[in-house]
Amino acid sequence: MQQFMDQDFLLSTDTAKWLYHEVAEQLPIIDYHCHINPQEIAEDRKFDNISQVWLGGDHYKWRYMRTNGTSEEIVTGDTDDREKFRAFAAVMPRLIGNPMYHWSHLELQRVFGIHEPLTSDNADAIYDRCNEVLKDYSARQLMKKFDVKAICTTDDPMDDLRWHAQIAADESFDIRVLPAFRPDKAVNIEKPEFADYIRKLSAVVGYELNGAEDVIRALGERIEYFAGHGCLCADHGLDYCMYAEPDVSAANEAFAQAMRGIRPEKALADAYKTLVTIACAKQYAEKNWVMQIHFGCLRNNNKPKYAVLGADTGFDAVNAQSGVENLAPLLNAFAQNNGLPKTIVYSLNPCDNTAVVSIIGCFQGDGISGKIQQGSGWWFNDNRPGMRAQMTDLAANGVLGCFVGMLTDSRSFLSYPRHEYFRRVLCELLGEWVESGQYPNDKAQLTKLVEDLCFNNTNQYFGFGV
Amino acid sequence: MQQFMDQDFLLSTDTAKWLYHEVAEQLPIIDYHCHINPQEIAEDRKFDNISQVWLGGDHYKWRYMRTNGTSEEIVTGDTDDREKFRAFAAVMPRLIGNPMYHWSHLELQRVFGIHEPLTSDNADAIYDRCNEVLKDYSARQLMKKFDVKAICTTDDPMDDLRWHAQIAADESFDIRVLPAFRPDKAVNIEKPEFADYIRKLSAVVGYELNGAEDVIRALGERIEYFAGHGCLCADHGLDYCMYAEPDVSAANEAFAQAMRGIRPEKALADAYKTLVTIACAKQYAEKNWVMQIHFGCLRNNNKPKYAVLGADTGFDAVNAQSGVENLAPLLNAFAQNNGLPKTIVYSLNPCDNTAVVSIIGCFQGDGISGKIQQGSGWWFNDNRPGMRAQMTDLAANGVLGCFVGMLTDSRSFLSYPRHEYFRRVLCELLGEWVESGQYPNDKAQLTKLVEDLCFNNTNQYFGFGV
Amino acid sequence: MQQFMDQDFLLSTDTAKWLYHEVAEQLPIIDYHCHINPQEIAEDRKFDNISQVWLGGDHYKWRYMRTNGTSEEIVTGDTDDREKFRAFAAVMPRLIGNPMYHWSHLELQRVFGIHEPLTSDNADAIYDRCNEVLKDYSARQLMKKFDVKAICTTDDPMDDLRWHAQIAADESFDIRVLPAFRPDKAVNIEKPEFADYIRKLSAVVGYELNGAEDVIRALGERIEYFAGHGCLCADHGLDYCMYAEPDVSAANEAFAQAMRGIRPEKALADAYKTLVTIACAKQYAEKNWVMQIHFGCLRNNNKPKYAVLGADTGFDAVNAQSGVENLAPLLNAFAQNNGLPKTIVYSLNPCDNTAVVSIIGCFQGDGISGKIQQGSGWWFNDNRPGMRAQMTDLAANGVLGCFVGMLTDSRSFLSYPRHEYFRRVLCELLGEWVESGQYPNDKAQLTKLVEDLCFNNTNQYFGFGV
Repeated sequence: MQQFMDQDFLLSTDTAKWLYHEVAEQLPIIDYHCHINPQEIAEDRKFDNISQVWLGGDHYKWRYMRTNGTSEEIVTGDTDDREKFRAFAAVMPRLIGNPMYHWSHLELQRVFGIHEPLTSDNADAIYDRCNEVLKDYSARQLMKKFDVKAICTTDDPMDDLRWHAQIAADESFDIRVLPAFRPDKAVNIEKPEFADYIRKLSAVVGYELNGAEDVIRALGERIEYFAGHGCLCADHGLDYCMYAEPDVSAANEAFAQAMRGIRPEKALADAYKTLVTIACAKQYAEKNWVMQIHFGCLRNNNKPKYAVLGADTGFDAVNAQSGVENLAPLLNAFAQNNGLPKTIVYSLNPCDNTAVVSIIGCFQGDGISGKIQQGSGWWFNDNRPGMRAQMTDLAANGVLGCFVGMLTDSRSFLSYPRHEYFRRVLCELLGEWVESGQYPNDKAQLTKLVEDLCFNNTNQYFGFGV
Repeated sequence: MQQFMDQDFLLSTDTAKWLYHEVAEQLPIIDYHCHINPQEIAEDRKFDNISQVWLGGDHYKWRYMRTNGTSEEIVTGDTDDREKFRAFAAVMPRLIGNPMYHWSHLELQRVFGIHEPLTSDNADAIYDRCNEVLKDYSARQLMKKFDVKAICTTDDPMDDLRWHAQIAADESFDIRVLPAFRPDKAVNIEKPEFADYIRKLSAVVGYELNGAEDVIRALGERIEYFAGHGCLCADHGLDYCMYAEPDVSAANEAFAQAMRGIRPEKALADAYKTLVTIACAKQYAEKNWVMQIHFGCLRNNNKPKYAVLGADTGFDAVNAQSGVENLAPLLNAFAQNNGLPKTIVYSLNPCDNTAVVSIIGCFQGDGISGKIQQGSGWWFNDNRPGMRAQMTDLAANGVLGCFVGMLTDSRSFLSYPRHEYFRRVLCELLGEWVESGQYPNDKAQLTKLVEDLCFNNTNQYFGFGV
Repeated sequence: MQQFMDQDFLLSTDTAKWLYHEVAEQLPIIDYHCHINPQEIAEDRKFDNISQVWLGGDHYKWRYMRTNGTSEEIVTGDTDDREKFRAFAAVMPRLIGNPMYHWSHLELQRVFGIHEPLTSDNADAIYDRCNEVLKDYSARQLMKKFDVKAICTTDDPMDDLRWHAQIAADESFDIRVLPAFRPDKAVNIEKPEFADYIRKLSAVVGYELNGAEDVIRALGERIEYFAGHGCLCADHGLDYCMYAEPDVSAANEAFAQAMRGIRPEKALADAYKTLVTIACAKQYAEKNWVMQIHFGCLRNNNKPKYAVLGADTGFDAVNAQSGVENLAPLLNAFAQNNGLPKTIVYSLNPCDNTAVVSIIGCFQGDGISGKIQQGSGWWFNDNRPGMRAQMTDLAANGVLGCFVGMLTDSRSFLSYPRHEYFRRVLCELLGEWVESGQYPNDKAQLTKLVEDLCFNNTNQYFGFGV
């Protein structure tokens, strides 16, 4: 029996252990998609206690606490931080098979030097020990501890990127902290906040936005602004992947309705979203940016809770109608418009894996290694079985060796062990293939594969130059 | 090599063996969802021969016999019972990888003491031995043999529950046999039998049913009646999960059409079904009942066979358009109506697993452990890979420790070994996680997990009090 | 550690090794669905070099080369054959986990006696060695080398089958090379080439085709013609599985529109396609043919590439809207029309597996073993995990012992090792079940299973009589 989460955690074969310890473990981290607040890096934030870091905004943990019968008062209310930690500790032993169980223990081990499993019995002691250790760490120190070389945050087109500028100007800090352009609020015309957002965007660019083409122009200017701050990528978040024939008049009709506070019908909304997305893609292609597309999320499903707690509080789910059938027409529209950028596609629905891999295979080329990528297991798929499924499916119908690999998608400076988690899953998978005779036991080739999948591919694909 | 279906069947690690033999195997059974006929318990039915029990109404077996080339005359015709048994025995060796192969042999082992594999060669001898043993068993004796503490049957709202009353009154029999409220015929307005059913329901409640609200009132009265007979749960079976804005006038229009023998169009039918389902849910919530929702079944697909053999004869399938995208709006409607009961969700489409787990995670709370559950692998998923997938997916995005676990969904008193099957699959899965270092080898914690997942969670969640 | 692709490739247990080496490996091959050009058999074609065989028309390989950054000039342009081979060799080490990696090495091993992994380093040497060996082989010699007993090609209804006749008449060659009837161009009315095709078909049958019933009559005559050339099966390729109530006037309206160059709307097109498909099925049933139905493919997704390179050049994908929900109504329509033939169903979407298995289970019978089949993992599923999933799902809800097993679907005479690949995956799976005690270690029974699944079932089901 393997010891609980020891140095060979998730590694069962000699090849896997060798690949992880001799290769993967040594590599630095590029976290090309996260939700870190750049202000916290600029100001080098420190943390009062572990509940603040772990439970402050982590709605993954909130869901499990609610499921375990923890009252909302404790989950999101004013209950004191020690009490919250105790409640979370009480869920832990029931989280067998859940990545949260492993992430939490990896964080306890790597940052806090705590190797025992967290339970109700030791919750108070661990709470105190963590808080003691936290005194020694700031945001930047945590990033350095995990050998992070570069990250991309997630930023609104209107953002002035002042924190990014401040970080870049700080010669004492050499980790690249780049913005990523996320124009969702200007694209998702069916959302109630659209009209307000457009008015604010208008103020930022300094002219009226009277239709889809004005929005495209405004976004183009902000893309220039972001590029001036080192931006290398964009991200589009969609409830479902849409496609409609690009039609300016339909798009403008949708725009006019939305600006009057009317939710446009789906066909019109799709026309607008498709038109703006195609135009953005073309601009990204011209800038040699990477475009990320995330689709298949059903948000804020519990309206009574949403009314009280707002968005991003643990009420989102997989959209089984992810619109993956529109992915091929959408990418084709990019190509027909001579504006197909390097693109990473993520569907929240794991059933889309084979479809996505087969679709991206239709748009490869232009001499770029892995030009169109399937993203690493996203959100509800960001776990051992989900990662194995994604990589197995990608390998079966694509070229795994071109894959750009892992990102955290996280708000927390403690999340970097998720790269370790991914690397262990990857090395185990490669090890299985080698030890069962499905791939040669060629150490040079295997070393290159692991270096590519854990660092080099990302570095080259995005052009981080680190 | 492990021996064929020996004591360590499906258990490959020491931890799995320990968990099964020391914990799971010792626990009694609560079968919270089945289709046992309560009259057979009340009258303590005995069986003439093994074909009667195995092949009398088991359309799972009929499908495999047809697939193997057995003539319909033998499958469902008047062919004598020995001949039917021979035909089924002939399929068995070809059923490698099928749960029926294991269920049948578990039943042969546990009830009949027969440990050799059933084939054409020994069919006659096994037939005779089984029939000899069957003389010693009645319905109640079989339930006791498997240490059953409580079951829930499946009952129509119109049922007078006389057999349940008779069983409850019988002080010589202490297994709880509770009814479950299944109002499908009053909900599924698109079915041709709806109008007739409503007329009969009207006769039972003693007043005219002139619209959706009358149906809701009538069902409410029957819910009271069922509660008076100890009922703790309801079950809604849906071809697909529907959702439409609750709209009484649309619902009543559908009702009026259906009562005139016109099949209402889908939008109207969905309005009716949604309205009635929301109202039922509220009543269950008030009674603290558990609501089960089964969706994603396409029934009676082979019309020529249906015309001859009727329903439940082996012609049902997975509905790939399961309507899982409506599950979140439906549960939200329950919540907005202040009537979200404890709910167990089953989709027949295994592709829905991650979506279902992510959706139920949006509706947890109220201090109830596992308030909203994903049901154990249903029907076409009630097999080793299906159970593993369901529990792995649930564990990855939910709290496996809160899961209420197994039910048989069966019509047969011989089916209780399916709980054994589930427990073996569960212990094997937990054992894998422990032995690979993904969970601590903490015997107390593991014992609690197994006790919870095999018995305690169910007992507490439903309130069986056994 | 197992050696790279040695004699026990993919076989990890003693039972698997025994089953493969003692049983499966000895069996001849029937390849009941392929795209071999019969002219190449009739003329006993020889090949100039390995690039010609491997890269001439193999768009699977083209996709991976594009993904790896190979320029289109090399992939499909006039670059010389050695250069193309080098470019493909460069992709190989990155194809870990991909069946192409295994197929290529199996072909190198079995035909060329080359056992080292192909890389950039040895590409030139291997290229030369392969070309030397190729001098010794012709099309027929390759078929004999792999002990092929019979194949079915894929042929247009208009084909005069002259090459099939010539092969049949050649007494020096005893491998059965039968045509298969593929009427896609007469069925898929929404395709732009439909009208032209119908005019040509009209010329072949010698009368005007003025509506759906004329097309049905014409196809019926061609079915007779094919039957006269020994044809045993048909194949229908559909972008999605359609169903509409059979309606001659709607079908004729679609026909009239299509003949005038108008793409009929979906409802009309579906009416036409359903009507013609039902009529074909009835004729197949009368002839005791096997009907294959392939659905769920989205073709030519990259329009700019399609404009330059045409069809079948690597731009096809899984159609997530595969129409599997129409499969039950379509098969039912066959049955209601007294014309349900033996049928093999393939969906390109692996998510359809459980639905397909459950649906075919509704249409079994008539005393035919495995009358309705799920086809082996098709295209994007034709790989180790895809095959395991298909067989595991089929076994869990069907009778695996009745399965007709593998086909290559290939254009190449080098592809027969894919049967070896399938047999290894199958024997490994059976071995797992036996060694874990899920199936008895009964060598006679296991031998029969493997013989059935690798040869006998196919031979009997189609009636090859070899």
